[in-house]
Amino acid sequence: MSQSPQLDGLHCPVPLPGGAAIKLAHGGGGELMHRLIRDAILPHFPNNVTTPGLDAAVLDWSAGRLAFTTDSYVVRPLFFPGGDIGAMAVNGTVNDLAMSGARPVALSVGFILEEGLPLETLRLVVASMGRAAQAADVELVTGDTKVVDKGKGDGLYINTAGVGRIEHDLSIGPSAIRPGDVILLSGDVGRHGIAIMAVREGLEFESVIESDCAPLAALVLDLLAAEIEIHALRDLTRGGLATALVELAEDSRQGIELRRAAVPVREDVQGACEMLGLDPLYVANEGRFVAILPEAQADAALARLRAHGAGAEACFVGRVNESGSGRVVIESEIGTRRRIDRLSGEQLPRIC
Amino acid sequence: MSQSPQLDGLHCPVPLPGGAAIKLAHGGGGELMHRLIRDAILPHFPNNVTTPGLDAAVLDWSAGRLAFTTDSYVVRPLFFPGGDIGAMAVNGTVNDLAMSGARPVALSVGFILEEGLPLETLRLVVASMGRAAQAADVELVTGDTKVVDKGKGDGLYINTAGVGRIEHDLSIGPSAIRPGDVILLSGDVGRHGIAIMAVREGLEFESVIESDCAPLAALVLDLLAAEIEIHALRDLTRGGLATALVELAEDSRQGIELRRAAVPVREDVQGACEMLGLDPLYVANEGRFVAILPEAQADAALARLRAHGAGAEACFVGRVNESGSGRVVIESEIGTRRRIDRLSGEQLPRIC
Repeated sequence: MSQSPQLDGLHCPVPLPGGAAIKLAHGGGGELMHRLIRDAILPHFPNNVTTPGLDAAVLDWSAGRLAFTTDSYVVRPLFFPGGDIGAMAVNGTVNDLAMSGARPVALSVGFILEEGLPLETLRLVVASMGRAAQAADVELVTGDTKVVDKGKGDGLYINTAGVGRIEHDLSIGPSAIRPGDVILLSGDVGRHGIAIMAVREGLEFESVIESDCAPLAALVLDLLAAEIEIHALRDLTRGGLATALVELAEDSRQGIELRRAAVPVREDVQGACEMLGLDPLYVANEGRFVAILPEAQADAALARLRAHGAGAEACFVGRVNESGSGRVVIESEIGTRRRIDRLSGEQLPRIC
Repeated sequence: MSQSPQLDGLHCPVPLPGGAAIKLAHGGGGELMHRLIRDAILPHFPNNVTTPGLDAAVLDWSAGRLAFTTDSYVVRPLFFPGGDIGAMAVNGTVNDLAMSGARPVALSVGFILEEGLPLETLRLVVASMGRAAQAADVELVTGDTKVVDKGKGDGLYINTAGVGRIEHDLSIGPSAIRPGDVILLSGDVGRHGIAIMAVREGLEFESVIESDCAPLAALVLDLLAAEIEIHALRDLTRGGLATALVELAEDSRQGIELRRAAVPVREDVQGACEMLGLDPLYVANEGRFVAILPEAQADAALARLRAHGAGAEACFVGRVNESGSGRVVIESEIGTRRRIDRLSGEQLPRIC
């Protein structure tokens, strides 16, 4: 899924000679900032309820639990096959809400712009955010814009925070994980990280590897609608599948067994990982998650996940054992077993 | 009020030789990030409910309106007389919630750290955020940490988003402003901007000018508790008092008259403004706001405001006239009248 169709073949737009660019005064709170927000940002955020003249968005809220989360996005390059920083900033926060079983309702957006950023780049990113919000059925309701001096940023950084409504009575989280639970994975892993690295390193493959960047809330809400008793959810961003499972094992004090052969990795992604010395289990994704739930509901859950484009390749990849070890053991394709740990050090900086 | 007493006389801490510093891997999602968050951040955020192992904080919420807002903070220097970026990041978002008449409930925190940032600097900022949150009676419940390459940031940037509960039935905002309303100002203006400029420019005054950085929610909640029928509120950040009034006039399509002689400006601030060629009405504040409300309640409202340290000098500075002009007219100390407009261009970059 490409969130930036107008950028095909031009993933890192360059400023046109003489094109308008961000100035420090665009962050000064005065007339220039007023015009920037009015002309370049608000047209893409039709549901922004902060304007006119309020410092906060005001939302009606029925009683119940509220999920609240935030993420900053510093990915480089800003545009890459399958996505861009704007689509990521929407989908990433939507997905964090979804991982607590919440229906995403509203997002805030904070831009930190570097002096000299081409206005056209900002417009493309904001337009992508508008499209991603519509696709994820979430509203961008309030925002903020700051400008930093040239050389003190990297084009633009985005923070989004999100609020979501929890419409079920489950306590989704590591403490709900039980021995015997199955671990379902929503699709192949490693594409986002490799898509980014390919652009950075100028690698070319037979076909372009696109990021898996996608909103996941619809998949989770569909599991809940089917009365799947979800125990835990985790999206596989920085640190990848391996780190997510290590954290779930530690936090739940349960032992997790992962079957390496069951984890889908596209052939071109596997090849790129070997060339770059990366393990795809540790590579970041932006549209993948694991769901941990009772074995008796595994088939029903897989059927629900596979009904969505982002879950078409959902599969069973492991289970929670009786050990209570708080550790993850991976069984290799030839049957050997070893403990795995979270990513140590850095694998891919600024991947999200 | 100094939010950083341990920094007296050392407003811009320098790294100790050999001191620990942020590495790119601190943002990689692995072991180093895990330890950084566990050791340097969470101890100061005792109410962080995101951990362990959840992507979002989950809050109980009774039915009613919810306020949601965000701001990023890029102020330089990070530490200044009367405050620091951490205290600002808490108070600024608390104040945006307060300006919609909401009781601040919870904040999210997103850090963008530059590789090489001394860990000690991060610790001081995080500790200041913890103290400011306690003082403002708000909880830091969820967060995110990213690291960017050396030369692509400026030490650290912070985004906070906030959710608040609206516990009254008023519609506070520009559309509620009526001819005859009075404009109350919570205290003297210009101190935050001048405190920052003094550090940047190495200016020395007889006494140190401290930022007015302060949380304002208690003042607003107190007005509401006294059944003051607040029509509009606005905090006086970027662009200062003048820009805030221009925006309120435009958004309400009402005419506003401001009495220059009634606006408190400390003598040292006035002197510094003259030296720097600044108009204190346009200088940013971080702990000042205007309240617009019916004249009949002006005295009661002033009494309530003056009961708080941050409102001790609250005063009447102007009124809404019958013109319906959407403009602000300022009456000078010698009785001349002229229209004022929002800040054009930049006055003080990176003031917040």
